[in-house]
Amino acid sequence: MNKNMQQYLEKAQVLIEALPYIQRFNRKIIVVKYGGSAMVDEELKRRVIEDVTLLKLVGFKPIIVHGGGKEISKWVGKVGMEPKFINGLRVTDEDTMEVAEMVLGRVNKSLVQLVESLGVRAIGISGKDGALLKVDKKYSDGQDIGYVGEIKEVNGQILYDLLEKDFLPIVCPVGLDDDFNTYNINADDAACAIARAVKAEKLAFLTDIEGVYKDPSDPSTLISELRVDEARKLMDSGYIGGGMLPKLQNCIDAIEAGVSRVHILDGRIPHCLLLEIFTNKGIGTAILNSEESRYYHGE
Amino acid sequence: MNKNMQQYLEKAQVLIEALPYIQRFNRKIIVVKYGGSAMVDEELKRRVIEDVTLLKLVGFKPIIVHGGGKEISKWVGKVGMEPKFINGLRVTDEDTMEVAEMVLGRVNKSLVQLVESLGVRAIGISGKDGALLKVDKKYSDGQDIGYVGEIKEVNGQILYDLLEKDFLPIVCPVGLDDDFNTYNINADDAACAIARAVKAEKLAFLTDIEGVYKDPSDPSTLISELRVDEARKLMDSGYIGGGMLPKLQNCIDAIEAGVSRVHILDGRIPHCLLLEIFTNKGIGTAILNSEESRYYHGE
Amino acid sequence: MNKNMQQYLEKAQVLIEALPYIQRFNRKIIVVKYGGSAMVDEELKRRVIEDVTLLKLVGFKPIIVHGGGKEISKWVGKVGMEPKFINGLRVTDEDTMEVAEMVLGRVNKSLVQLVESLGVRAIGISGKDGALLKVDKKYSDGQDIGYVGEIKEVNGQILYDLLEKDFLPIVCPVGLDDDFNTYNINADDAACAIARAVKAEKLAFLTDIEGVYKDPSDPSTLISELRVDEARKLMDSGYIGGGMLPKLQNCIDAIEAGVSRVHILDGRIPHCLLLEIFTNKGIGTAILNSEESRYYHGE
Amino acid sequence: MNKNMQQYLEKAQVLIEALPYIQRFNRKIIVVKYGGSAMVDEELKRRVIEDVTLLKLVGFKPIIVHGGGKEISKWVGKVGMEPKFINGLRVTDEDTMEVAEMVLGRVNKSLVQLVESLGVRAIGISGKDGALLKVDKKYSDGQDIGYVGEIKEVNGQILYDLLEKDFLPIVCPVGLDDDFNTYNINADDAACAIARAVKAEKLAFLTDIEGVYKDPSDPSTLISELRVDEARKLMDSGYIGGGMLPKLQNCIDAIEAGVSRVHILDGRIPHCLLLEIFTNKGIGTAILNSEESRYYHGE
Amino acid sequence: MNKNMQQYLEKAQVLIEALPYIQRFNRKIIVVKYGGSAMVDEELKRRVIEDVTLLKLVGFKPIIVHGGGKEISKWVGKVGMEPKFINGLRVTDEDTMEVAEMVLGRVNKSLVQLVESLGVRAIGISGKDGALLKVDKKYSDGQDIGYVGEIKEVNGQILYDLLEKDFLPIVCPVGLDDDFNTYNINADDAACAIARAVKAEKLAFLTDIEGVYKDPSDPSTLISELRVDEARKLMDSGYIGGGMLPKLQNCIDAIEAGVSRVHILDGRIPHCLLLEIFTNKGIGTAILNSEESRYYHGE
Amino acid sequence: MNKNMQQYLEKAQVLIEALPYIQRFNRKIIVVKYGGSAMVDEELKRRVIEDVTLLKLVGFKPIIVHGGGKEISKWVGKVGMEPKFINGLRVTDEDTMEVAEMVLGRVNKSLVQLVESLGVRAIGISGKDGALLKVDKKYSDGQDIGYVGEIKEVNGQILYDLLEKDFLPIVCPVGLDDDFNTYNINADDAACAIARAVKAEKLAFLTDIEGVYKDPSDPSTLISELRVDEARKLMDSGYIGGGMLPKLQNCIDAIEAGVSRVHILDGRIPHCLLLEIFTNKGIGTAILNSEESRYYHGE
Repeated sequence: MNKNMQQYLEKAQVLIEALPYIQRFNRKIIVVKYGGSAMVDEELKRRVIEDVTLLKLVGFKPIIVHGGGKEISKWVGKVGMEPKFINGLRVTDEDTMEVAEMVLGRVNKSLVQLVESLGVRAIGISGKDGALLKVDKKYSDGQDIGYVGEIKEVNGQILYDLLEKDFLPIVCPVGLDDDFNTYNINADDAACAIARAVKAEKLAFLTDIEGVYKDPSDPSTLISELRVDEARKLMDSGYIGGGMLPKLQNCIDAIEAGVSRVHILDGRIPHCLLLEIFTNKGIGTAILNSEESRYYHGE
Repeated sequence: MNKNMQQYLEKAQVLIEALPYIQRFNRKIIVVKYGGSAMVDEELKRRVIEDVTLLKLVGFKPIIVHGGGKEISKWVGKVGMEPKFINGLRVTDEDTMEVAEMVLGRVNKSLVQLVESLGVRAIGISGKDGALLKVDKKYSDGQDIGYVGEIKEVNGQILYDLLEKDFLPIVCPVGLDDDFNTYNINADDAACAIARAVKAEKLAFLTDIEGVYKDPSDPSTLISELRVDEARKLMDSGYIGGGMLPKLQNCIDAIEAGVSRVHILDGRIPHCLLLEIFTNKGIGTAILNSEESRYYHGE
Repeated sequence: MNKNMQQYLEKAQVLIEALPYIQRFNRKIIVVKYGGSAMVDEELKRRVIEDVTLLKLVGFKPIIVHGGGKEISKWVGKVGMEPKFINGLRVTDEDTMEVAEMVLGRVNKSLVQLVESLGVRAIGISGKDGALLKVDKKYSDGQDIGYVGEIKEVNGQILYDLLEKDFLPIVCPVGLDDDFNTYNINADDAACAIARAVKAEKLAFLTDIEGVYKDPSDPSTLISELRVDEARKLMDSGYIGGGMLPKLQNCIDAIEAGVSRVHILDGRIPHCLLLEIFTNKGIGTAILNSEESRYYHGE
Repeated sequence: MNKNMQQYLEKAQVLIEALPYIQRFNRKIIVVKYGGSAMVDEELKRRVIEDVTLLKLVGFKPIIVHGGGKEISKWVGKVGMEPKFINGLRVTDEDTMEVAEMVLGRVNKSLVQLVESLGVRAIGISGKDGALLKVDKKYSDGQDIGYVGEIKEVNGQILYDLLEKDFLPIVCPVGLDDDFNTYNINADDAACAIARAVKAEKLAFLTDIEGVYKDPSDPSTLISELRVDEARKLMDSGYIGGGMLPKLQNCIDAIEAGVSRVHILDGRIPHCLLLEIFTNKGIGTAILNSEESRYYHGE
Repeated sequence: MNKNMQQYLEKAQVLIEALPYIQRFNRKIIVVKYGGSAMVDEELKRRVIEDVTLLKLVGFKPIIVHGGGKEISKWVGKVGMEPKFINGLRVTDEDTMEVAEMVLGRVNKSLVQLVESLGVRAIGISGKDGALLKVDKKYSDGQDIGYVGEIKEVNGQILYDLLEKDFLPIVCPVGLDDDFNTYNINADDAACAIARAVKAEKLAFLTDIEGVYKDPSDPSTLISELRVDEARKLMDSGYIGGGMLPKLQNCIDAIEAGVSRVHILDGRIPHCLLLEIFTNKGIGTAILNSEESRYYHGE
Repeated sequence: MNKNMQQYLEKAQVLIEALPYIQRFNRKIIVVKYGGSAMVDEELKRRVIEDVTLLKLVGFKPIIVHGGGKEISKWVGKVGMEPKFINGLRVTDEDTMEVAEMVLGRVNKSLVQLVESLGVRAIGISGKDGALLKVDKKYSDGQDIGYVGEIKEVNGQILYDLLEKDFLPIVCPVGLDDDFNTYNINADDAACAIARAVKAEKLAFLTDIEGVYKDPSDPSTLISELRVDEARKLMDSGYIGGGMLPKLQNCIDAIEAGVSRVHILDGRIPHCLLLEIFTNKGIGTAILNSEESRYYHGE
């Protein structure tokens, strides 16, 4: 067998290795919170979208939830708006909300565009469409910080209907209150609430860190698997840094609402989604149910 | 019978009068091109959305196609962009397209919001979603005017799928070329192409004029009904003004592609849509097939 | 705006006002017990059928249950039959039953005819079709009064099947006992039993009175809304007259079986059904659940 | 093997013999025109209904069309109406039509009752239900004979819908003209028109004669099979008697509209339907397509 | 009426008598364990297949489960294999299993062939197809007797899917263990497990005895009906012979898992299945629930 | 990036490369003729089944058609049968057919077993099931060579039904003539006839040669792509050897019946199916339509 053939066989082997994973997640819903560097770097962006598209094509039902962070700041500046603060917190006033919604909408459609260019049917919606995300006004320590919403209800049927029509839904985290005003929502919270509402099999956060550490100051303490009870202890330990705390809480909430496994992945690694799902070398940190024996991820 | 009761009976009578119209258009698709003053005045806006929502609730299948005209200009100015011109034509360069898409996206979701507030399921999409609108680059007398597209293909199945799931689709006229670049599309053209692709029963343009005039300088020459052959003669007559010419051509194209009737309505009249559809006093101008006997609109 | 236009706008306004009611009852089943003067007066008859047809067209699922009262007596006389009595009660012997079934059948088809003439698909059935109404023989104080039946079972699936095929079912109250003999059934009882079996949202009785009075001798004591517990007290009060007692009992039974609201309407008022359902000025008396806050009818 | 067992085996053999016929007509529509003696004699009546019910249960889709002949005359007399004649023809004036509809309606429901007593779902309709039978006024040699209709349109979808919901439809021949007036229809004509509209596999007429004779005066000339071209010749021959002529024309029309085979059966023979369909000894006369080889009925 | 006609009427009468049975078992699943003499004698074989095919055609959902007994022994001899024994028990080693599977497969397809020749859609499967039958290795008093399996799981969905596609499934009792090795299964056990898994209405064993006797030495003690509690007493009585004991246990298990009635029939009687199901003279022994009143079989 | 990560990324890249192929063949039917060395070598066997299983999981609809060649000869010898010959041709007499069917049946179920062990739903059928393959007796130059059949009809609905129920059908080439006798069929012919009947997208032959050569004596003349017209010329050229001629004819027939592409693959190369379908380096020879531009396979 010549060298070329050898290479081809190795390729075939990779596909064959994916077989049990393809089976396991057939027709299962996977919610991907897409954000961080993977949204900024065009190369990484393409990789993520390729991954999600492949998941769709081999039979999964992915849903993307994305933020728009840096783009929003850029445009707020561009239009010359003065940022407002209350007690040191940025306030989402009506003008800011207007810009934020415009920016998020465009990011949303640009992701649709990428998925469509790969030949898969996508649809970009916000939490307004079908009143997908209903919110209450959120206060920060009693302070009014403007149009920032806390999700109180997800109309999951909207997503089921779109999945049934073979769309890959891409959701931006804007919602409506009971008076149908527009609110901004934290994208992590939106992804978590959606995963719970549609009883997702998996929820994956693309982040800019490698995963959860026992001791954030020591890279060698990256945790590969974390059961919910362990996650709680870790949160109590005081070691976990600010940004990670609400994310871990989201993970715990998702698991307790029936999501089988939540992944905190390093979005800076190309194809991190495929690597996590299709190889037995998991990357990042997986949060799972306490009662669950650690039956895969290494089986 | 006292006076109150008399009033109630008159109300009942109005509902009963609507009966034959409700029957005629049951499960029929009606494309509404929404634009002009009716998009600017908040009161008129609400009226239009109420009308479309009612059409949906009594069994029609409306689709809204909207533009964003004045809002786009406002934001292009706000971000301090220099308008570019070639041969006196405004050029949609990449930056302008970016702003336009953001603005159209926001207008789109604000209409979704209004429909949802009336209790009907809406979904806001652009021509990117499901690759609904595929375009070729459009040239103006051979001049490159940037990202302005001419529709070459409408993926009507996307709209059928959303209608089947009981959504009221609201479409903004942004499309994709074969390389999946973003293009702006004239909203009238988009409405017409969509009406043809989904074999709409009706296509209604909300405009800022009362209808078509034999002689635009003489208000008494408003035409109530116009057959396709008459429309052609009128276009040849030289009387018809610039803005109306492409609109009339769109009407003719739609009729020839199987749309039963096209309406040019005065969007400045509150509830013009309801008045046109539910009363035997049509308003505006109706364009219809030449072979068709003028069987309704006055029956 | 000229006077004509003003009138048209008022018409549009009436349609818009109907919007929340159309939404509320979308795809809900409404059982209408049709009888009394509204069945005799040709003008009123047409009005009722127009109302029910409109309800159908705007998305409700109405079912008509009717009697044939005066027509039966007329024909019993015409064929020269001797009325028989036992203890002062009219006896439905075999011959009477035969005539009654003939008359009810013809009334039934004449209603079908009216609905069809308005362009809506109707089907006229009796309790024999699909064995819709199974009865036990009814005795009056132990006396055999012939073929008079008490409903013991409603085969609701028959009605669901017809509704699914988009028929407006019109039912005449004839049933079968276990030996498949023919029985006459009180139309009020039939309407009530059917409303319970199909879990109707509403049950409306068209009667020849304005509604329920606290004191029937005083027209000013008409009750607009009556909770089940109040209805019970009223029945115990001794004020309620003979004909109304079983009707109220039927209302209570219906509410307790899950029907949301029962209406006692004055069928002599043209379009009483539309007025009750589509305007916030209810007419007649509405019976509702005791726990229910009086959330609409005047909202 | 004892004698009892022998008898049982013979029974089993009969069932087995039915096997190929059950296969052949599985899910095929069979229209049965039910009339004549078989409608008067209670014993024969039960036999016919048993047959049709069995056809339904083993997988066919029977539709019964019935008249009411003698019953109508009886009741017209009972109510003391004067028969009216024009040129020697009985006139169906409004009063007669009223009685006829009542009687037909009752006969209709009594057949429903019989079928239901055998455990099969029946529904009794007239040509008014769903506007099944639309008619034009029929004239006899230019003379107005009242409300007698000629079928111009059958809404076959109504019957498909009822068959799909597993009903056995029983139809009485009353129809509507374009102004929704009530008309009487000849039951043979109705059966034929319905068979054509629903593309029935078979149409069977239960009559009071043994079949078609070459020479009606000679019982030995009973024709077992008749091709359409032979039927035409026979009609031209002058031998065929008055009542048979329109029936034969109906048969020819049905065959030409795609019905595979039409049967003229002697309804006075108990279970004539089963005998014709389930045994290779056909009874009565079968009319079939000229091109058709006589491939069954004796195979 | 001549003699021929008389015979035909008797035939019709037999069909009519079948009516209530056809109704009762409409769309019900009937599992037939096919074995013994009825599999060897070609005449009997045809009779059984005719019976099952008729059951299918009149609306039942039969499933055949068969063994291959004598054929397997014949072929094991033909290929010159040495039978192996442990403690006097025949051992199904790998070679024997190979031959057994080949023989059972051929028997299976020959039954398919017979059913197809009668015009009914059959499909022959083993417990491997769709992993229908999952087994554990069975030991005989602790002794390893080779590839003999005990059913631990039936994937009933496979059979529902085939029935839904209108196949008559014919199953041979070969199964898979958790490592996907091939095992032989006792056909009686397989039939019983399948009947339980698909919630069959009936389970019929075709055997070479007349039924269950109170005293096997006295033919006059044949039991026509046996309630589960009586069956248990009988098993305890010591009278029941070896082969019948596990069969009775299977019957009891099936009844307790929801099968309505189990029949032990004499497969040597032609058409025993039809006789049992379609006549009120049951043959063989019927086992039924203890609580059940003996409501049919003689009604 | 460390070396491990590098390897993972390469794996991800392989999956991503498969994306366009997965899209192209989504829900397309692919018929695989499985035979030759790939059926004998256990390692190759597993590879082939893994490939087909993966195709199923990523959304294709594969159908396997297999022979049993060497196994049949082995068993014919084992049971001591004398091979019979006419004019030098082996005759499939009744005894041989019996053994052949047994062997093919077992091979069939062993493939089912393998697929099931990989977690995919398989069903093993022969051409008898659902009368999938109807044949005429085949003669060799007028000589009777026994039960060898030529396919005259494929009941493709059977396969559509099984695919719809998500089975992977595995077919062995045994058929029925009009008298329902058993016939052996050439597996290549069966695969080709099935591919035509179900309008397969692809038909792949696993063989023991590398592909088609211009000059079989010169390995460097392997043809990578062959249009139908070229294939015909090649067949006329006289260079093509005996075994390849009917195979090429089959390929041409398949293409002309609408199969898009036929592949002659070397089954001795592990994963040859995956390599052919998922990489842009095709292996073996692809036969395609003459009009077709060589639009893929190298794109």
